[in-house]
Amino acid sequence: MTPDAIAAAGQRFAREFPHFIRRTPLWQLPGRALGLDCEQVWLKLEHLQTAGSFKARGMLMRLLSQPIPAPGVIVASGGNAGIATAAAARELGVRCEVFVPVVSSPAKQARLRELGAEVVVTGEAYADALQACLDRQRATGALLTHAYDQPEVVTGAGTLAQEIEAQGGGVPDAVLVSVGGGGLIGGVASWFQDRSRVIALEPEGAPTLHAARAAGAPVDVAVGGLAADSLGARRIGALAWDITQRWVPESLLLPDAAIRAAQQRLWKDFHLAVEPAAALGLAALAEGRVQATRPCIILCGANLDPATLA
Amino acid sequence: MTPDAIAAAGQRFAREFPHFIRRTPLWQLPGRALGLDCEQVWLKLEHLQTAGSFKARGMLMRLLSQPIPAPGVIVASGGNAGIATAAAARELGVRCEVFVPVVSSPAKQARLRELGAEVVVTGEAYADALQACLDRQRATGALLTHAYDQPEVVTGAGTLAQEIEAQGGGVPDAVLVSVGGGGLIGGVASWFQDRSRVIALEPEGAPTLHAARAAGAPVDVAVGGLAADSLGARRIGALAWDITQRWVPESLLLPDAAIRAAQQRLWKDFHLAVEPAAALGLAALAEGRVQATRPCIILCGANLDPATLA
Repeated sequence: MTPDAIAAAGQRFAREFPHFIRRTPLWQLPGRALGLDCEQVWLKLEHLQTAGSFKARGMLMRLLSQPIPAPGVIVASGGNAGIATAAAARELGVRCEVFVPVVSSPAKQARLRELGAEVVVTGEAYADALQACLDRQRATGALLTHAYDQPEVVTGAGTLAQEIEAQGGGVPDAVLVSVGGGGLIGGVASWFQDRSRVIALEPEGAPTLHAARAAGAPVDVAVGGLAADSLGARRIGALAWDITQRWVPESLLLPDAAIRAAQQRLWKDFHLAVEPAAALGLAALAEGRVQATRPCIILCGANLDPATLA
Repeated sequence: MTPDAIAAAGQRFAREFPHFIRRTPLWQLPGRALGLDCEQVWLKLEHLQTAGSFKARGMLMRLLSQPIPAPGVIVASGGNAGIATAAAARELGVRCEVFVPVVSSPAKQARLRELGAEVVVTGEAYADALQACLDRQRATGALLTHAYDQPEVVTGAGTLAQEIEAQGGGVPDAVLVSVGGGGLIGGVASWFQDRSRVIALEPEGAPTLHAARAAGAPVDVAVGGLAADSLGARRIGALAWDITQRWVPESLLLPDAAIRAAQQRLWKDFHLAVEPAAALGLAALAEGRVQATRPCIILCGANLDPATLA
């Protein structure tokens, strides 16, 4: 998860998989276009990524990390990581089993099946689906892709940060990252280190990093609320914990109302259809929780039922 | 509507209105990412423009063209041009009246009211709303913005083409443009002239340019079908007629089924939420109606009910 490893992953994506890992647009707007008083806001439109979220980067990287056994790959995921794993497996032509908790949306489950995955719906929360998945993995020997807590997954996510810097022609002075299990912020912070202010954002209803900081180490939290579907990991990943302790001093909690308002605004004023988890950055700026001159918001996912935007 | 006039308009937008006229992303993808065998496809994400379509460019240009009288501005529009006029009027702080036909969507009418416009719903088709609007304009003396057939409107739309060339680092070998009244293609063809292959695309149900070509001059057509809400002009504009006769040899008709399939694909595989009118370019490529190495598709509008995407 060094900058060199991230750069190498980005080069491999560009060389071998330019049709699969998309170089998503970085949209640089005057702050005023979003009603904010920062000079510029950078929107990284990663919700346009293959499989609808940044997760495709990490999952493909994981699948490329070692030979894939005959039983294929297996994953437990609240949705986006499972969809990304299924898409990556299809790209490489290997089998895929996905375990999802009952809280995951029917739309995501349908999408998984369309991508050719075998879907197992079990458990109230992500952690329950994970346990069932781990049991199954021991039985079959399939290659496990963890939704966030594997080095290749974090390295793959880091390619997003490298892209932001290349596209922006420099480093934003703040990068606002939504945190569930921490795969994205782990990759982003590993790339920028102390060259930008990487800020962790969580919904009040799913505070894995916040709770870990309060306790001094990763702990289980109850998860719920608007963004639980994609940010509903029960505990911050061990990798993300180490990386954020080193490089991410700021961790903010946001209420569902602010997240929902930001999501609706992105749709109404910009026709960007993003899931709640992708709206935390705008919520933090709009609520005045972050001051910055040239902040970058990562719109991390778009796996949503579009009817919920209206 | 010369390239010089378009360049001057683009410079004015960038200097005085960067928060209002957005420099929308140009997304350059390998053709394979869209399942196409062209080398690259350029997607101009103009549906992310202020007021949800390219129309903001032309309408602001029109409002800047002369002093605005006390009764403000007035427009007849199937939707997007009205919304853009309302937004431009609000930006400049002037009154705005919008006439729309009953076929225009309730969502667009609501949006007009939110933008502070007075909305008059009248007539079966655009032409009927236009007649009522013209009567009213004669009574009040308000500044009329025509949805497509005014030089400033066409020049403003042309700034989109200039942007494509600047962002793409060159000229695409084909530009696929949806045609209703012809404001967009008028601007695009005025910019590129013979430097690119500008191709006119119309739904079978709203063939204004196609019918004009068959007749040898602009004629009224019956309008209907999936994209009538935004491409439902009854007759090609006089300006667009002249420009397309000179610079646009190719004019294609597409069936609603292909348009709808392309719209759904843009949502499902790319999470781009566009209206049917914006899907004609992908439909033409997917159906094999256009062969090109590096075609540019203009995603021209996103004024839709998101529930229709599911």
